[in-house]
Amino acid sequence: MIIVMERTATKENVQRAVNLLEEHGFRVIVHEGDVHTCIDALGDKTTLTPGRVSALDGVKEVKVIREPFRLASRDRKSEDTVIEFSNGVKIGGKNRPVFIVGPCSVDSDYAGLLQVATAAKEMGCEFLRGGAFKPRTSPYDFQGLEEEALKMMAKAKEETGLLLVTEVMDSQDLPMISDYVDVVQIGARNMQNFKLLKAVGKANIPVVLKRGPANTIREFLLAAEHIMYNGNEQVILCERGIRTFDDKYTRNTLDLTAVPVIKKLSHLPIIVDPSHATGQRYLIEPMSKAALVVGADGIMMEVHHDPENALSDGKQSLPIPMFKDVIKRLSTLRDQLEYDKTCLSANVK
Amino acid sequence: MIIVMERTATKENVQRAVNLLEEHGFRVIVHEGDVHTCIDALGDKTTLTPGRVSALDGVKEVKVIREPFRLASRDRKSEDTVIEFSNGVKIGGKNRPVFIVGPCSVDSDYAGLLQVATAAKEMGCEFLRGGAFKPRTSPYDFQGLEEEALKMMAKAKEETGLLLVTEVMDSQDLPMISDYVDVVQIGARNMQNFKLLKAVGKANIPVVLKRGPANTIREFLLAAEHIMYNGNEQVILCERGIRTFDDKYTRNTLDLTAVPVIKKLSHLPIIVDPSHATGQRYLIEPMSKAALVVGADGIMMEVHHDPENALSDGKQSLPIPMFKDVIKRLSTLRDQLEYDKTCLSANVK
Amino acid sequence: MIIVMERTATKENVQRAVNLLEEHGFRVIVHEGDVHTCIDALGDKTTLTPGRVSALDGVKEVKVIREPFRLASRDRKSEDTVIEFSNGVKIGGKNRPVFIVGPCSVDSDYAGLLQVATAAKEMGCEFLRGGAFKPRTSPYDFQGLEEEALKMMAKAKEETGLLLVTEVMDSQDLPMISDYVDVVQIGARNMQNFKLLKAVGKANIPVVLKRGPANTIREFLLAAEHIMYNGNEQVILCERGIRTFDDKYTRNTLDLTAVPVIKKLSHLPIIVDPSHATGQRYLIEPMSKAALVVGADGIMMEVHHDPENALSDGKQSLPIPMFKDVIKRLSTLRDQLEYDKTCLSANVK
Amino acid sequence: MIIVMERTATKENVQRAVNLLEEHGFRVIVHEGDVHTCIDALGDKTTLTPGRVSALDGVKEVKVIREPFRLASRDRKSEDTVIEFSNGVKIGGKNRPVFIVGPCSVDSDYAGLLQVATAAKEMGCEFLRGGAFKPRTSPYDFQGLEEEALKMMAKAKEETGLLLVTEVMDSQDLPMISDYVDVVQIGARNMQNFKLLKAVGKANIPVVLKRGPANTIREFLLAAEHIMYNGNEQVILCERGIRTFDDKYTRNTLDLTAVPVIKKLSHLPIIVDPSHATGQRYLIEPMSKAALVVGADGIMMEVHHDPENALSDGKQSLPIPMFKDVIKRLSTLRDQLEYDKTCLSANVK
Repeated sequence: MIIVMERTATKENVQRAVNLLEEHGFRVIVHEGDVHTCIDALGDKTTLTPGRVSALDGVKEVKVIREPFRLASRDRKSEDTVIEFSNGVKIGGKNRPVFIVGPCSVDSDYAGLLQVATAAKEMGCEFLRGGAFKPRTSPYDFQGLEEEALKMMAKAKEETGLLLVTEVMDSQDLPMISDYVDVVQIGARNMQNFKLLKAVGKANIPVVLKRGPANTIREFLLAAEHIMYNGNEQVILCERGIRTFDDKYTRNTLDLTAVPVIKKLSHLPIIVDPSHATGQRYLIEPMSKAALVVGADGIMMEVHHDPENALSDGKQSLPIPMFKDVIKRLSTLRDQLEYDKTCLSANVK
Repeated sequence: MIIVMERTATKENVQRAVNLLEEHGFRVIVHEGDVHTCIDALGDKTTLTPGRVSALDGVKEVKVIREPFRLASRDRKSEDTVIEFSNGVKIGGKNRPVFIVGPCSVDSDYAGLLQVATAAKEMGCEFLRGGAFKPRTSPYDFQGLEEEALKMMAKAKEETGLLLVTEVMDSQDLPMISDYVDVVQIGARNMQNFKLLKAVGKANIPVVLKRGPANTIREFLLAAEHIMYNGNEQVILCERGIRTFDDKYTRNTLDLTAVPVIKKLSHLPIIVDPSHATGQRYLIEPMSKAALVVGADGIMMEVHHDPENALSDGKQSLPIPMFKDVIKRLSTLRDQLEYDKTCLSANVK
Repeated sequence: MIIVMERTATKENVQRAVNLLEEHGFRVIVHEGDVHTCIDALGDKTTLTPGRVSALDGVKEVKVIREPFRLASRDRKSEDTVIEFSNGVKIGGKNRPVFIVGPCSVDSDYAGLLQVATAAKEMGCEFLRGGAFKPRTSPYDFQGLEEEALKMMAKAKEETGLLLVTEVMDSQDLPMISDYVDVVQIGARNMQNFKLLKAVGKANIPVVLKRGPANTIREFLLAAEHIMYNGNEQVILCERGIRTFDDKYTRNTLDLTAVPVIKKLSHLPIIVDPSHATGQRYLIEPMSKAALVVGADGIMMEVHHDPENALSDGKQSLPIPMFKDVIKRLSTLRDQLEYDKTCLSANVK
Repeated sequence: MIIVMERTATKENVQRAVNLLEEHGFRVIVHEGDVHTCIDALGDKTTLTPGRVSALDGVKEVKVIREPFRLASRDRKSEDTVIEFSNGVKIGGKNRPVFIVGPCSVDSDYAGLLQVATAAKEMGCEFLRGGAFKPRTSPYDFQGLEEEALKMMAKAKEETGLLLVTEVMDSQDLPMISDYVDVVQIGARNMQNFKLLKAVGKANIPVVLKRGPANTIREFLLAAEHIMYNGNEQVILCERGIRTFDDKYTRNTLDLTAVPVIKKLSHLPIIVDPSHATGQRYLIEPMSKAALVVGADGIMMEVHHDPENALSDGKQSLPIPMFKDVIKRLSTLRDQLEYDKTCLSANVK
């Protein structure tokens, strides 16, 4: 790290910083500039954080050279992480992108859920997603059917063979949820719920970690780091739109550039959720195509057998016939991209 | 609510919307405009949410007239909520603003904590704050001393009589934490951790609810609504800075305008935390003064006996001598404002 | 428009609003809700703006039903606007996307510029872009060669037949610049320079209008409206990234969703500039591909014969060999999309 | 500056960077870190910009130590800049804050303008502001009376002795406008209209430079640098709200922290405009008070003799009786702060 001193810093301020750095094993070089004195602290120590150094009197700012995430970084592991499921489905690396589809929340109509699952299976999708525990901005909105929903999902899995994904909102529910599903999801608003990150980090189940709508890419990778640091390396990142100044025509702004950026920074797979990002049915197809061509390892989209009566997110859910049309065109594009994906990986290095 | 139809909407689309609205008891008026047909749905029903209506075919957008928060709204309760503690301290209404001070995280040096508490007491502050459970962006940062920290805080309370505030990060810790402190805090990154909101909603203890750094004022009040809806009306809102495009010189952007805006929308007390918002020691005094003059019901600030060795947030913590100077000037201003605060309340109506 | 009154509004407040609306020819319907009185004002009048109505005492907010842009709207003109050049090149509608390439700023090395132009021609690009007048954040940066640069561009056009695009920064320069180039560009920071919009609106030359980095889609279309209102309908919109809270790994956040959103709202063509949006060479290829699949009518990218010595934006410029590789793959994708583009248009309706 | 190399950078990449830096006169030190090689470039040269260095192959990023603004910086000039007018009014330094009041745009009712001016004079305000050239998001809004408005303002000056401020939108209008007014204003949307900054930089008249709603503090000071670099050091900065994710209850988010931050970085005076920032009449008083206590050198606010009939910004304009009440309370606070302001200056050093 590099410590930039205030122009008003005294010799004692500089010496104090140097001493602290040396105590922690850094090799230290001091430059007196025309305006600011700078201190280069060489070495890769984790015992002294930049925050501590910045609290010293006379320190203007601390510039960090190395990314703060380690386990999630390509610096540590250059080959792509691939997550493999019991039925042979794989996410990440040079494997073809997966499709994860289903209703925002599972409601009490099992026949409807099965219609979605059957259509998904028929169209070659790999995963059924469905909400059992729902985080809702307003307490007056539908909060999910909890375990009852999971039972219905398990039944749909039995009939179709699709793998299951659902969101976990509280560490106490994790063991129960893990019994039903193949992948647990951390929702966007829980991306920095560190207790929950720790809990899934200690579990042995793949995790879809959604980017918080106002979190930087660095914070996103640090949230993954929390999970990995606690022992679970099966992390699938998910870009789902960020909050910006314009939410007039879409719910959030889908940050597709994050896909190749993260491919460069990290070995973890990353998927894209255009449904939550845009909040609009008609935008799912173009944004899914875009996700595929920038190198996403999967697409997660909302499909409902009767969106007009969905208890949540109906506006952004595809009805089944439209879903079939869209997925057919996406599958064609997915097939064309096999070669391109290799190119992409080559480019980002 | 008002439903604006797409210009391409059919008569059937309109009829379908009308039927659904009437089924839920709304009085309905349809206007055919030059471009868009609009439907006015009159009545105050909670069984049909705007989200459900917007999922209907042919609906362009749904415009909501009434704010979605109810219990937190001044429409329901026009007089200010005042929270009173066993020692007579009051927050909210026309009571003078309180000062809540202490270290970001409690470290193992009890003598240091006591120095801060003693200075706080001496300067007329009402609350000692301190972190026992710390949410940290990186897993490599200090995570808090947990119950050990709470024991030290309780000891400092015994010696000084200050009321205690600490953050709760997980619903499982709530009963234990409530035994030690007078107020629990929901941190900014947990503002939409709905499981936690529900848990504190079912408890009988005052709650400081911090605004999420990327949450709107409406979402902030809806988070308070979650707590109140579950039975706990002792909610103290806390503005602590929002995330914007500029974080070069400050950590976040303190949104002081939120104070009079929220005073107009809600009866709940609101305090301001300039330490986390700015991340810079030298900004605490001017921004605290500003918070007082815009009508804040309290100021929460970080004070440490030895900021250069603090395990977190040293840069933004006031050392004790500087704290005394600052609080002296703030107290003077607080005394001058008694009359002004009445004016403010008058203005916002 | 719909006028929502404050809950404290008096009968006189309501009557005053009704009178004003009726004076301007609106048909008025008043609803007394449980909390708020609402006034529906029917009719499409431009003499009374929402801003004026919102200034009346007792008015809480004014909700606008119809988009404020008219000439740029698909409501007025449902077929796509196509801009055709003397050499038969067309932008917009079902025409294949164009490629606009060249250096950020033209420096004094004509041979270098010609190398870029020759490569562009060889690879099937349609336009050469180059900066003569440069808006620069710092006065210490290179400000452009002005007319000298235009002369070099004109020479390169003579040799290659490429059409020319350059930025105009001041209405005074417009006549001179128009003599040299085929398209003038309004830069992102001038998107709301209304004097300049008016000037190009009165000229008879196609205009590339870049979206301001912090401007909403509505403001973007209103800026186009300024140009069209003054008589020039040859407007090509350009998405070039917006400013968000995360600029650590990219310069801006490319808002690709804006492409299908704008296709739905407006008949104007829209192109994408991944170079300025990302600021990183390695991101140009994936983001260009994404732009093509979401329906962009063209791609504008920075290419330099010697990026390491470019006087501006070298980091985001492609060197010629890399440019050739990228454009070859983009051309392949462009060819595959002919059919898809029809689908896209179908979808957005 | 410090150059961080990619972990994949070659020795040749490093040598190339070293050579370029040495050619431009920097003293260069190379450190080989565990992951990244870093190059310290010592010296204060303006011939080689960071952007050029970042374009070199193998460069990950360039970290700048010194602020890019020079003339505007306190490093160059530690005492506050004070701008003095012919009638003895002063802005900046330890002088008491000024009040700049008047209508958003001057409409054809001179009697109304005079009422505002007379009230302003009576209440001890120093400046009359009024728009003659209006930047408007929509071409259908009122665009200003141009010179006719200036003539009315000049007449009001004759009768009251108030100094005049108006906005200039185009360099061509500057000489004419300068004949009428004492201060020209660069509007927020023109903050990076570099042609206009250059023009006012070459003029000899004080300039109020408004912060662009999506511009960083650094860009704001660089815009001031453009004016100063061209010869005019009479720059008054104006914070007027920034664009964030929340515009539901206010037009923009007033960034009051910018005031003490800029006081630390620069010697230029800074004033605050709460009218445009909030867009709401009831917020002008509290936010003006806050501006005064954080150290603003002046307040600019909109006052109209008949806001319900104002042609622009009526919602945020104070009617005359309310203005008188507000300004009376602000004047009381201003008087109390004389001593405090000294404290503030002391703090920010």
